[in-house]
Amino acid sequence: MKPSEQEGSPESPVASGSATVMTRLVQMEVVPGAPRDNTRRILDALGRARADGAGLVVFPELAVPGCLLGDLWDQPAFLRECEACGEEVRAASRDLVVVFGNVAIDWTRRNEDGRVRKYNALFFAEDGRWLAPEGTGLPAVVKTLGASERAFDDARHFFGTRRLAVERGVSAAALIAPVATRRAGRLGGMMGEDLWVDDSAISPRGILEAKGAERLIVAGALPFTRGAPQMRFRACRALAQAVRLPVLYVNATGVQESGKTVYAFDGGSGFYDAQGRVTEGLEAFAEGELTQAVPIGCAAFAQAEATAGSDGMATIAQALMQGAAKLMRRLRIRRVVVGISGGIDSAVTAALYGRLMAPEDLLLVSMPGPFTSPTTHALALRVAQNLGCRFTEIPIGEAVELTRRQFAEATLGGGPGGGAGTLALDAAAMENVQARDRGCRVLSAVSAAFGGVIACDANKSETTVGYGTLYGDIIGWLALLGDLWKSDVYALGHHLNRLYGRDVIPQGCFDVVPSAELSAAQAVERGQGDPLNYPYHDCLFRSWVERSERATPEENLEWYLAGELERQIGYDGSVRELFPDAAAFVADLERWWNLHQGLAAAKRMQAPPVMAVSRRAYGGDLREAQLGPRYTERYRAMRGRVVGG
Amino acid sequence: MKPSEQEGSPESPVASGSATVMTRLVQMEVVPGAPRDNTRRILDALGRARADGAGLVVFPELAVPGCLLGDLWDQPAFLRECEACGEEVRAASRDLVVVFGNVAIDWTRRNEDGRVRKYNALFFAEDGRWLAPEGTGLPAVVKTLGASERAFDDARHFFGTRRLAVERGVSAAALIAPVATRRAGRLGGMMGEDLWVDDSAISPRGILEAKGAERLIVAGALPFTRGAPQMRFRACRALAQAVRLPVLYVNATGVQESGKTVYAFDGGSGFYDAQGRVTEGLEAFAEGELTQAVPIGCAAFAQAEATAGSDGMATIAQALMQGAAKLMRRLRIRRVVVGISGGIDSAVTAALYGRLMAPEDLLLVSMPGPFTSPTTHALALRVAQNLGCRFTEIPIGEAVELTRRQFAEATLGGGPGGGAGTLALDAAAMENVQARDRGCRVLSAVSAAFGGVIACDANKSETTVGYGTLYGDIIGWLALLGDLWKSDVYALGHHLNRLYGRDVIPQGCFDVVPSAELSAAQAVERGQGDPLNYPYHDCLFRSWVERSERATPEENLEWYLAGELERQIGYDGSVRELFPDAAAFVADLERWWNLHQGLAAAKRMQAPPVMAVSRRAYGGDLREAQLGPRYTERYRAMRGRVVGG
Repeated sequence: MKPSEQEGSPESPVASGSATVMTRLVQMEVVPGAPRDNTRRILDALGRARADGAGLVVFPELAVPGCLLGDLWDQPAFLRECEACGEEVRAASRDLVVVFGNVAIDWTRRNEDGRVRKYNALFFAEDGRWLAPEGTGLPAVVKTLGASERAFDDARHFFGTRRLAVERGVSAAALIAPVATRRAGRLGGMMGEDLWVDDSAISPRGILEAKGAERLIVAGALPFTRGAPQMRFRACRALAQAVRLPVLYVNATGVQESGKTVYAFDGGSGFYDAQGRVTEGLEAFAEGELTQAVPIGCAAFAQAEATAGSDGMATIAQALMQGAAKLMRRLRIRRVVVGISGGIDSAVTAALYGRLMAPEDLLLVSMPGPFTSPTTHALALRVAQNLGCRFTEIPIGEAVELTRRQFAEATLGGGPGGGAGTLALDAAAMENVQARDRGCRVLSAVSAAFGGVIACDANKSETTVGYGTLYGDIIGWLALLGDLWKSDVYALGHHLNRLYGRDVIPQGCFDVVPSAELSAAQAVERGQGDPLNYPYHDCLFRSWVERSERATPEENLEWYLAGELERQIGYDGSVRELFPDAAAFVADLERWWNLHQGLAAAKRMQAPPVMAVSRRAYGGDLREAQLGPRYTERYRAMRGRVVGG
Repeated sequence: MKPSEQEGSPESPVASGSATVMTRLVQMEVVPGAPRDNTRRILDALGRARADGAGLVVFPELAVPGCLLGDLWDQPAFLRECEACGEEVRAASRDLVVVFGNVAIDWTRRNEDGRVRKYNALFFAEDGRWLAPEGTGLPAVVKTLGASERAFDDARHFFGTRRLAVERGVSAAALIAPVATRRAGRLGGMMGEDLWVDDSAISPRGILEAKGAERLIVAGALPFTRGAPQMRFRACRALAQAVRLPVLYVNATGVQESGKTVYAFDGGSGFYDAQGRVTEGLEAFAEGELTQAVPIGCAAFAQAEATAGSDGMATIAQALMQGAAKLMRRLRIRRVVVGISGGIDSAVTAALYGRLMAPEDLLLVSMPGPFTSPTTHALALRVAQNLGCRFTEIPIGEAVELTRRQFAEATLGGGPGGGAGTLALDAAAMENVQARDRGCRVLSAVSAAFGGVIACDANKSETTVGYGTLYGDIIGWLALLGDLWKSDVYALGHHLNRLYGRDVIPQGCFDVVPSAELSAAQAVERGQGDPLNYPYHDCLFRSWVERSERATPEENLEWYLAGELERQIGYDGSVRELFPDAAAFVADLERWWNLHQGLAAAKRMQAPPVMAVSRRAYGGDLREAQLGPRYTERYRAMRGRVVGG
């Protein structure tokens, strides 16, 4: 993007809007940080498209660099590589209009952080030349609404339309315009979150329509989360209906992550006609190419809409498996070790990995300890047998006893007066000793011997309140279930058994009371398990984490007092049945809130990355500092009125 | 911030600019996420100021809520609390002009993420009434340049001036104006990063000057990093000189963190006269209040400038100690456990904590293993004796041997064919077994028995290339040295000995070759240590991490070939002496780059939070995804020319 190229589009005869153009949408897997690989695949796709007679080929947002790259954008070498790749795509655009996402770089200007100017841009090329949005003075379409939510940091790296407008002293609308092409008429380019803008101060759709766009392109890099595909489907439909123009929606597949939050990208690309009907759509989570003459007739495929509407455990399982599989391939992980307890979390985790790899590459490790029950012990072995994978058993009793003894005998010396003290471990400490012996002595060494990574089976309920041992069970390469509430884990387990066509997860894993089995008080055979009432607490915790405007004990108590807690948090039982009185409700509320905001936050800092499937996942999505548990004045006042103190 | 209050400032007689007003700067510790606590201390300060006859009292940016709060901004309960606190401060402004930072909330509008509208704002109140910036239609000063770099995420949470300008269809300049006060004349409010803006499309300083500001207030929430206090000092001076107005600069103290990156806030508040001379300044890292009649004479204090100019290990040690101490207090940590090896990192860590707590609350744990040398073993004990703190010794030999034996005897069953395999641990695996036995069996249990947290002694050099064991030595509540290169650690050690007035860190810790002592090949007494040449590699790694436009092997190789690597990376040795030829240079470069971008990134995801002191710290400051090691085409071409293949 040299200054001389920023002067606008070349004069060229423009195809009439009533003509049709054979259009190909390329729903490709974008590998983050790998511009060369992505570009090779873009060029391959262009070759195929040309051979098939396509005149317009559209790729996703940031198809060259990827989107979730951390701060890789700070490396000029990476930027130069992306720019060079973009030039190769331009050069390959003979006889075609090519639309693709890449970083646009203005080496002559600076971002406000002092680094080189970068835009998240949609590039248009035809017959080997760049085409610019008409009259904007910009060499490419710049994303109007940069994503600065969830794990996305557009504003950190990219200069946006509004900053540009202020810098140039023009209206934002002056920076948005269609791109005139010879083969495909006037194309209105939009990117990702631009899809949602329709009532803000800038309406890209309205501006593009007013300036004569004949087709809208929405190039996305939008990850899967529960319900997101349907929202996008509805948004594309609404967009087409609003402007009465065909919409070409292209989204990436693959997996990208912010370090701590991992997303699977679901694709879901499709053609929408000017009435908002999907005329053709691509399978989710898979690469694919779709070709159509646009604009086309009105034969909407009901099936595409139906597909977009599905959102049960099937889609979530697909997201988890695709995400894990692609990330394993990228990180060159071939083998996985799962600590298997006989409980539901490790069984579901093992069953998920069982779908992703050869049985000889999956190793289940049973690590019975002093409080392991015969029930769970037998279930653990059964899961391994059902999966036909590798299995080993390494008990922890001897090492745990060695630690207990060593600490009982240790002398705590030094200090003022030099008085000796003791380091004897109490019961709570001995619970964590067991968990760490399993995770950091046994599993870590097993993974080294086996040449694999450790699977983390922590779920979102445990993660919310830190019900787990750091460096114990909170270890591993990826928390595949880390964005699923406990109740989701059960549902996923049933779905996996259906997928396998048999009960690889034995019924016993569903039936046994959830328990850490780390003390005599956690005896599953006497029905003694976790201190959480999952059906209720899952809903309560969700209100703290997943609501757009997040709830706190203030709202929870207010709802409780108004008799509407169940409705507000979506709990289908009765809270009055769980807690005899307000004092009991408050005690439970504060117990978990204290943990959630306190020790659990400290544990989450060092927990494995989470595979995201919900509206809000821990990690780079829900950002946290260690602020400690706090209560508002309003909460304290309400609490004082109902329980005193 | 109800709409009815957004209509502008009340009509009031305005004090003439030539009058003086007794002005107090309150350099306060802002506790993040604790609006009630912060407000109580603001109100206390107002009481003192009134008693002392001050007419204008100025507090830091976001003094009510704190600034690094993760996504706490998503909680409406928290926002309401902040708003209520702000009203209390307003009510307490009788007989005073009060200027303080808080979140401004417009409950009638939305941010682009769909959440309630929030601004990072500077509020002005006088005699119990809000004062608004003249003619802007805004109820408070909105930060012009939101921070979206390092660990800051302003754009994620706050609606900024430019977005407002586009939304309202006005120029950004229309939203910036002085606030007219009765007692203190027209005050120009600026916040944090606004200090740096002077050549961008918006110049707050220029607009404020043009609109008749008589004094400029710069309210900051700016953390300490190496060199930052001097930069701010120079910026304040330049600001005053540019506008020929007095500048009141108030910055917070305390500690705030993004989860993974912890910052100490250094304060550094002071009065600058209209010639840019510091007339009075406050001590760094400590709370304080400063009172002066403004505008005042020209008696610049040379000493304030001198203080601001100091930037050696003394300031860094101060930042580390203040940061750790305040964070410990906030998280209610009273006791600390340090695994002490006899090497420099653990000795410096122990000496730092020794300055922060009573000796009976600091416990050093020696964990000799099969390859621990008599030299380091003796040094470890010596450090504890020198500090007079608690000490214990728990050897790892027996547990490590148990693990080795258990794995040698374990059977790897299951899998296709049911063939048995082995899980025997090789030499590399046994190194990690030792490290994890120390960290997760011994230290974790010691911390439970002692009731303290584990100190992490990882430095930035190790962290860059993952030279450490996850769940082994990469554990703990905070990596206090995690932003210091190995050479900085030595310098800090010498400084600490000077602080103590004696060699608490024995000379032997400086002299012994750095070594993990995890195998027979790492024998310090034969001079066998880490595979890193720290003086060189520290400089190389710094070019990857700390340069504003980060370098990669592409630049490194280019510099090497041009004979300017030493100058570019600041290495004062000769690279030609380290590597016999280009092939050796390249092999070393790629070895560490592969680790840096590969396994080390995975380790950093789960590493403890880092106390930041440099331009760029790991964690929320330098954001990373697991992208794997990659090389640009240009690097490959250069490499091919010099070493083939």
